[in-house]
Parts: sequence; structure tokens; C-alpha cells
Amino acid sequence: MSKQEERVLDRPAGAVGCSPLVREPLSADRSAELARVFKALGDPVRLRLLSLIASHAGGEACVCDLTGVFELSGPTISHHLKVLREAGLITGERRGTWIYYRVRPELLGRLSDVLVPEMTA
Amino acid sequence: MSKQEERVLDRPAGAVGCSPLVREPLSADRSAELARVFKALGDPVRLRLLSLIASHAGGEACVCDLTGVFELSGPTISHHLKVLREAGLITGERRGTWIYYRVRPELLGRLSDVLVPEMTA
Repeated sequence: MSKQEERVLDRPAGAVGCSPLVREPLSADRSAELARVFKALGDPVRLRLLSLIASHAGGEACVCDLTGVFELSGPTISHHLKVLREAGLITGERRGTWIYYRVRPELLGRLSDVLVPEMTA
Repeated sequence: MSKQEERVLDRPAGAVGCSPLVREPLSADRSAELARVFKALGDPVRLRLLSLIASHAGGEACVCDLTGVFELSGPTISHHLKVLREAGLITGERRGTWIYYRVRPELLGRLSDVLVPEMTA
């Protein structure tokens, strides 16, 4: 293992991290974590849901705000919301009858930082 | 269709675009384009390949530089490189025996911009 790879592996486990992937080789662990989140983003319905939630009034939305936009059943939308939630991209809070979803800006920010195309030396 | 959705659809087709997804709802077309690229990133081996290519000396690498890092066959690595290439994340240029791969920083930059977690109003 190279010095560079050792340094990457020193990072705390479970942290998606924010060092751009163009700067140094990703470790196997870190790439597995990141791939899980990008896979959740790799679906058009989930991307639209994420965008609708984030841009909704007050930065939150319930399933009742989302179902009218798609020609998809409630259970299908709920499934996609579950995938986004399990990937850590949104949180859900039950209030009365509905669960209200919010985007987690800190994870979006870390993903954005990972993709920054810094110039290599 | 809302005024907001009309405005998003006005964008040129085929452009991944760079307006943050938290700012306004993604159109169906734009989310389909973005999902295709995020899906290509949703695999640990492809993320590591992308990172290895970008951080390699001179910002480029051939399969000969990449095979030693993984316990994967040459054809498997070539398949993943093909997926990255078809998603527009890397380019390949044949020089002599080898194809040399480079990351496309402009696409990485646009993806990074899409994920920026701007605060909503």
C-alpha cells in the first residue's frame, strides 16, 4: 500500500469525507460509502423527489406534496423516499398523519466537494 | 405545468446544467440525464478508477496503470471504463498499444454544482 493510500484510510470510518476524488486515490472503504449514495442518486425519480423536497416551501415536503407530480403510485414514491433516506440524503419526521421530508444539506455538500474537479499537479 | 417547471425545460437539451437541484424542481429530462451519470458513479470500482485516473501522474492513466490495484480481470476493468466513458466522465485516446484515459473536469464540475446545498428561501 502506498503512503498516499495509507493517509486516505486514516480517515474515520463512516465519514463520506470531502477531499476531491481527483486529488488522491479513493480507498476501497470510502469508495464503497460514496458509491452507495451515488447509486441512490442514479434514478430520475429519486433525483426529482430530492429536488422537489429541497425546493418546496420551507425546505420540506410530505408524500401528499409529491404524489401529484408523478404518474406513480404512493407505494412506489414511498419506496424511492426510503432509498433516499437509507442513503442519508433526506430525513423524515412524523407530524400528525404525515411524514415530512427534508434534504440533508451537509451530505449534499460533502458529495459536491468530492466531485470538485481540482487541477492535478 | 408550473412557471418554474417551464423555465427549467427551457434549457438546451443534452446539457447536464449546473443549477443546484435544491434551488428549483428538476425537469424529467434533466433528471434523466443526471441520473445516468450518477448511476455510473454508483459503483465502488468505477469511483476508484475515476479517482486513480484523475490523480495519476499527468492526469491520465492506461489500463496497464490500473489493473494492479484491483483483484479484477482486465476485461472487467475495461467494462467499467466503458461505462465511465459512455457516461461522459472520462475520455480515452489511443496512443500506440494503449488507450490513455483522462477525467472530464467540466462534467465533474457541473455535477458538483448540481449538488451544492444552497439554502432555500
